[in-house]
Amino acid sequence: MALYVQKFGGTSVGSVERIQAVAKNIKACRDEGHDIVVVVSAMSGETNRLLALSAEISADPSPRELDVLVSTGEQVTIALLSIALQELGCDSKSYTGDQIKILTDSSHTKARIKNIDVARMQEDLKQGRVIVVAGFQGVDEQGNTTTLGRGGSDTSAVAVAAALKADECQIYTDVDGVYTTDPRVCEKARKLERITFEEMLEMASLGSKVLQIRSVEFAGKYQVPLRVLSSFVEGEGTLITFEGVEKMEQPVISGIAFNRNEAKLTLVGVPDIPGAASRILGPVSAANIEVDMIVQNIAEDKTTDFTFTVDRNDYQRVKQVLESVSEDLGAQSVVGDNSIAKVSIVGVGMRSHAGVASKMFDCLASENINILMISTSEIKISVVIEEKYLELAVRALHSAFDLDSDAVAE
Amino acid sequence: MALYVQKFGGTSVGSVERIQAVAKNIKACRDEGHDIVVVVSAMSGETNRLLALSAEISADPSPRELDVLVSTGEQVTIALLSIALQELGCDSKSYTGDQIKILTDSSHTKARIKNIDVARMQEDLKQGRVIVVAGFQGVDEQGNTTTLGRGGSDTSAVAVAAALKADECQIYTDVDGVYTTDPRVCEKARKLERITFEEMLEMASLGSKVLQIRSVEFAGKYQVPLRVLSSFVEGEGTLITFEGVEKMEQPVISGIAFNRNEAKLTLVGVPDIPGAASRILGPVSAANIEVDMIVQNIAEDKTTDFTFTVDRNDYQRVKQVLESVSEDLGAQSVVGDNSIAKVSIVGVGMRSHAGVASKMFDCLASENINILMISTSEIKISVVIEEKYLELAVRALHSAFDLDSDAVAE
Repeated sequence: MALYVQKFGGTSVGSVERIQAVAKNIKACRDEGHDIVVVVSAMSGETNRLLALSAEISADPSPRELDVLVSTGEQVTIALLSIALQELGCDSKSYTGDQIKILTDSSHTKARIKNIDVARMQEDLKQGRVIVVAGFQGVDEQGNTTTLGRGGSDTSAVAVAAALKADECQIYTDVDGVYTTDPRVCEKARKLERITFEEMLEMASLGSKVLQIRSVEFAGKYQVPLRVLSSFVEGEGTLITFEGVEKMEQPVISGIAFNRNEAKLTLVGVPDIPGAASRILGPVSAANIEVDMIVQNIAEDKTTDFTFTVDRNDYQRVKQVLESVSEDLGAQSVVGDNSIAKVSIVGVGMRSHAGVASKMFDCLASENINILMISTSEIKISVVIEEKYLELAVRALHSAFDLDSDAVAE
Repeated sequence: MALYVQKFGGTSVGSVERIQAVAKNIKACRDEGHDIVVVVSAMSGETNRLLALSAEISADPSPRELDVLVSTGEQVTIALLSIALQELGCDSKSYTGDQIKILTDSSHTKARIKNIDVARMQEDLKQGRVIVVAGFQGVDEQGNTTTLGRGGSDTSAVAVAAALKADECQIYTDVDGVYTTDPRVCEKARKLERITFEEMLEMASLGSKVLQIRSVEFAGKYQVPLRVLSSFVEGEGTLITFEGVEKMEQPVISGIAFNRNEAKLTLVGVPDIPGAASRILGPVSAANIEVDMIVQNIAEDKTTDFTFTVDRNDYQRVKQVLESVSEDLGAQSVVGDNSIAKVSIVGVGMRSHAGVASKMFDCLASENINILMISTSEIKISVVIEEKYLELAVRALHSAFDLDSDAVAE
């Protein structure tokens, strides 16, 4: 007998048939004796349909009214899912964000949750009801409808789980768990039974798009065990848990993340004067461009090469910005490369294992892959390489760090 | 400077273009210095779309969840209309039934309004904002979303107008006012500048479908001046007002209503025993059939002929019910006619004018129209005639009671 919060995204509830399938899934879990609170998104396509209507009327609609508009998407889903559950003989009740007082700040379209009133939900659970909550939405102190921004339903689910002290928050998606790396690149990729929050955060920030990074942070902060599993295929999925659990059994590395959507720029021969970094990155940030890795080395001649990576779509714009910065600073030249990729190994195990970095570099060297940049944190090492070597690097590292599964992934 | 509550139905807000047209209309009125509260329905077709989704899942969905589902329709409209108003530079704010606390009982899908909290609206009006309220919906004491049933947006508008003590509640429809009779039947039909509530109620109950009868009752009860006007054509429409106003100028008769969707049944030779009427109508009502006119005459031989009218769609079912009732009661036979029509003259003026009934009967007799049934109330006289004479009867009465316009109606 456990209390589960189960979250189903837009694809999982994208049609009447899918909603009925989700209802069956919930009913089966309920029949095992568990208490269940469900959090749902709008049916896939619905939010975009509503935004398109608004866009026909105004290029710059009021965020308050946008929230009134798009929050109807989830409201339709909760009603339909609740009706589907009742049709299966499963007592249920739907709630909007307003009705269970998912209290947020007043930042319309990107609100943050401050509190959730659990009294009403606890009463329903006591009555044996499945509770169906509209994700993505809340209400501010003045009673205005707010939304949490794209992907906010994951955050809603985690917040509800935290407030109810649920045993698990189960995020149903279109993948059946978190893998050691992308199975499309490495067929020996293995599904992880567990991964720590820190590792999951690194994997997410490095381009593994299984969960919204904000919901993972939130779950970590409130110590909500999170499970990723498929709403289409049966299985246990992957549990995202706290460090220390069975740490001895953890492999050194949990996964290989990568991102091919990067570009690299270098300002060559920058005079080594105080404030040079900010004079370079200031104009980049002012152009609203996000910088990822940054590397700087002081050379013998008291000038420095300043290198950083950006999203590949920003490459041309950044290059223009740097040309003028280069003149200002009296640097030698700007060079860039937009056919690079970033590969990262992630694992809390590397904290207590020496030589992980050198093992990584050895592995790449043995495949004749040249490393262009290196950046490290406590639980990850990232390298930038030429894009053409990406698949080779991922497979070689996957094998070198003993991540390969015995069976070939489906 | 007046305070107007303006209600726009589904057709008036049926597309983005229509919503933009409505916004312009409101802006123009606002620019004249008036305070405006708008009440809107769901975009035409939307409520049916939502009900169809629910019908795919369940033949008998929970009324509570149905209300959560369909109330999203109006919520979409308030957001889009508010965005359209702001786009025209007109400050506005949208509210759901919940947000301005349109408090109702808990009869889901047919709730009745108990109270409206005006504090929030009054504050917005003071700030110069146009308020856009979702019609058709409310909230019960427990915070559940409720709806008022089909056509409930008219009732919402009247209730908001009553609560705010508005100068007028303006119902925008697809007709430009109330006519002396249906212009499709009588080309000399004239648009009324004014009509009393009592007359409007009789017209509505007799088949003139300009306004929901419930909203007219509600407006009469709370003394809210009601105006019917077109959202497509400019004009003053028809003001529905209280008896006594300019009563001296009132014609004897205000309008001719008719209903061709009736059928007539007679139980012949019913023994005149106590309780006969209830033994006849009890089974009819038990079969969920509504009865309209009822006439009973005691004959010389102490038996009676019991005649009543029903909706034409119920004719066959009622006939079957009556066959078995006839046997029970020992009546002679059941006869029926489903090609009849009802024609009524309506007017508060007939209270103080003798001879209205005889003038009506004379008029019909002079056209050789036989009267099959008669029923009267204080401000209306209804007759049942053969359906084939309907148009002739309406035109003859329209002329006899001096309702013809000088100009031919467009």
